[in-house]
Amino acid sequence: MAVYLDHAATTPLRPEARDAWLSASELVGNASSIHGDGQAARRLLEESRERLAAVIACDPIEVVFTSGGTEAINLALKGLWWSNPHGAIVLPDGEHHATLDVVEWLERAEGATVRAVALDGVGRVPVDAFTGALADAAFATALVANNETGTINDASALAAASASAGVPLYLDAVSAFGHVPVSFRMWRGDAAAGAGLVALSVSAHKIGGPVGVGALVAARTARLTPLLHGGAQQRRLRAGTQDVAGAAAFAVAAELAAAELAAEADRLAVLRDALVRGILSTIPGAELLGDAADRLPGNAHVLFPGAAGETLLFLLDQAGIAVSTGSACQAGVPEPSHVVLALGRTDAEAREVLRFTLGRTTTSADVEAALAALPPAVERARAAR
Amino acid sequence: MAVYLDHAATTPLRPEARDAWLSASELVGNASSIHGDGQAARRLLEESRERLAAVIACDPIEVVFTSGGTEAINLALKGLWWSNPHGAIVLPDGEHHATLDVVEWLERAEGATVRAVALDGVGRVPVDAFTGALADAAFATALVANNETGTINDASALAAASASAGVPLYLDAVSAFGHVPVSFRMWRGDAAAGAGLVALSVSAHKIGGPVGVGALVAARTARLTPLLHGGAQQRRLRAGTQDVAGAAAFAVAAELAAAELAAEADRLAVLRDALVRGILSTIPGAELLGDAADRLPGNAHVLFPGAAGETLLFLLDQAGIAVSTGSACQAGVPEPSHVVLALGRTDAEAREVLRFTLGRTTTSADVEAALAALPPAVERARAAR
Repeated sequence: MAVYLDHAATTPLRPEARDAWLSASELVGNASSIHGDGQAARRLLEESRERLAAVIACDPIEVVFTSGGTEAINLALKGLWWSNPHGAIVLPDGEHHATLDVVEWLERAEGATVRAVALDGVGRVPVDAFTGALADAAFATALVANNETGTINDASALAAASASAGVPLYLDAVSAFGHVPVSFRMWRGDAAAGAGLVALSVSAHKIGGPVGVGALVAARTARLTPLLHGGAQQRRLRAGTQDVAGAAAFAVAAELAAAELAAEADRLAVLRDALVRGILSTIPGAELLGDAADRLPGNAHVLFPGAAGETLLFLLDQAGIAVSTGSACQAGVPEPSHVVLALGRTDAEAREVLRFTLGRTTTSADVEAALAALPPAVERARAAR
Repeated sequence: MAVYLDHAATTPLRPEARDAWLSASELVGNASSIHGDGQAARRLLEESRERLAAVIACDPIEVVFTSGGTEAINLALKGLWWSNPHGAIVLPDGEHHATLDVVEWLERAEGATVRAVALDGVGRVPVDAFTGALADAAFATALVANNETGTINDASALAAASASAGVPLYLDAVSAFGHVPVSFRMWRGDAAAGAGLVALSVSAHKIGGPVGVGALVAARTARLTPLLHGGAQQRRLRAGTQDVAGAAAFAVAAELAAAELAAEADRLAVLRDALVRGILSTIPGAELLGDAADRLPGNAHVLFPGAAGETLLFLLDQAGIAVSTGSACQAGVPEPSHVVLALGRTDAEAREVLRFTLGRTTTSADVEAALAALPPAVERARAAR
């Protein structure tokens, strides 16, 4: 493993989560089976659901396990649309590509219309503009924290605005969960049935759980059409044999992330700030994007004017430093970052950005290695233009 | 673990698959990331895809990894429908509930129509009736082997008929794969683009791989709309961070199942036949359902007239024997088995059936234990009516 500064793409599996997976995988029995072996699997599944629910602050029955963040996003957006396919979808700029692609498909194939909300200069969804877009909307979506800029939205205010407007809100917490406080219950508040925060997505492998596991928190009163039909599992919202080992590992990872959250946020912010200070002091013209203060603790999203992000990524990789230009889901797609464009930046600038994301295994030595490798890499990338 | 005779619901994880999962989970890196860590994950993913493709006899690019059989089924059926939403869906009776529920939703919500094909008395799809239903159909679906009766369909003939009719065919091989020979390439033959066998679903946890992993084999020329939008992964047919560890474990399990297939089929058929003979000789009125010879080697699907299947299941469970009344996905749903009804049986009979499914860990002692526990259980269940 290189100096790994791409924890937002995926972060190492926690040993405790691995052990939980291993232990659960010894169980024989489909959690839907009625016999004793099935019920033993079912007990561990439901215990894992309860533990995860406690971390997200929701009721266990509201946790719908999925195969990951992308499935949760698809279930939320398509499920909300199909359950009431009328009106516009309120869609802030700069959403994750999974959300964009789903909404684009709903628009193209299913007759949805879209009401866009422009971001401010640091990549935050302006509460006023968002509120203004809600009238008669089908539903609204927003990120708890942007996966590229790291900027944290005012989820509480967005949820309150949606509740007031009587509009269902889906929040994508995939990049925020485990890194900043997330409370489904608090954000939902006392919103009426089907209004305000009704669904929230999380993913295991972003916090040290296994890949292939996620969840959609769906309020009891949420009106959602399933994405996967075929069985009575999980309130009939998500058919399919339930992945008990994955759920157990996710619950363990979530509990550990929650327990460490405050201390780890402080530790990562110190390392991240050292990285940013080092970059700004050694790389002429470099600029931190996103909100300087209110951002994911491990995130540094930096513009390197005159240096192509893809070139920088390759040069750093050769130097043993793993970073990204944006979402891994878009890696290899030769497009400027739509998130950087949504900050009001130029097309050229949207190709000159790197995202450094620090995580549980990151040390100050990693930061120093990145700071040593960056100046010559930027120089070469600039010369290559 | 009890005497476990419910291997069709799920079968124990193979140690070699567990080790492959563990080894892969040490890799850090999202398989979509461009840096070295991502590419290492990508290499293992693509190697696993190649190994699985070799077992299924398809091209690696045709393997679309999913979160399991249910997602593969949903992707196949909804994907085929959305890509060309015109005409009828040819649907044999007695399909798995995942297929039924998806088609029912396509009918109710998306405007599809259905052309049913009745099964014969042993639960096989009659090739003539199936062929007759194909004219101008949107697409057809069928099971390679029925998950309740164990009866094996003539997949080759169904695929040939679909190819001749110019109709796309999706085959659900979830219950067959790893137990009887499955060859995508052979069944597809030289069918024209978009006709004949275009998609086939398989699942890992039915053959000793982990839960939460499956695949849809989708022919290069198959027209499929994705179920999960959001990224460029897997030919854009299935967005989402790819589960490298799950794919690696699935490939290992598939290779082992294929290597053991012939010997294990013989071994299980001997045990299964001993179970069936024992039942028929000790339980008055008991009757084997499905085809006596051409059935899944580990499957015994037995009618116990006058004894409620649910009661029998509970009594056997108390005696330490784990069996099922049918699909685990429908467990707890108080309905007669639609598969048994499709055999031309009565509603009462469709509630008096048990499915015994033997697997890799089954021994003759397990069969003897079941044979010892059954007579008193049937007697009590019959007395309870």
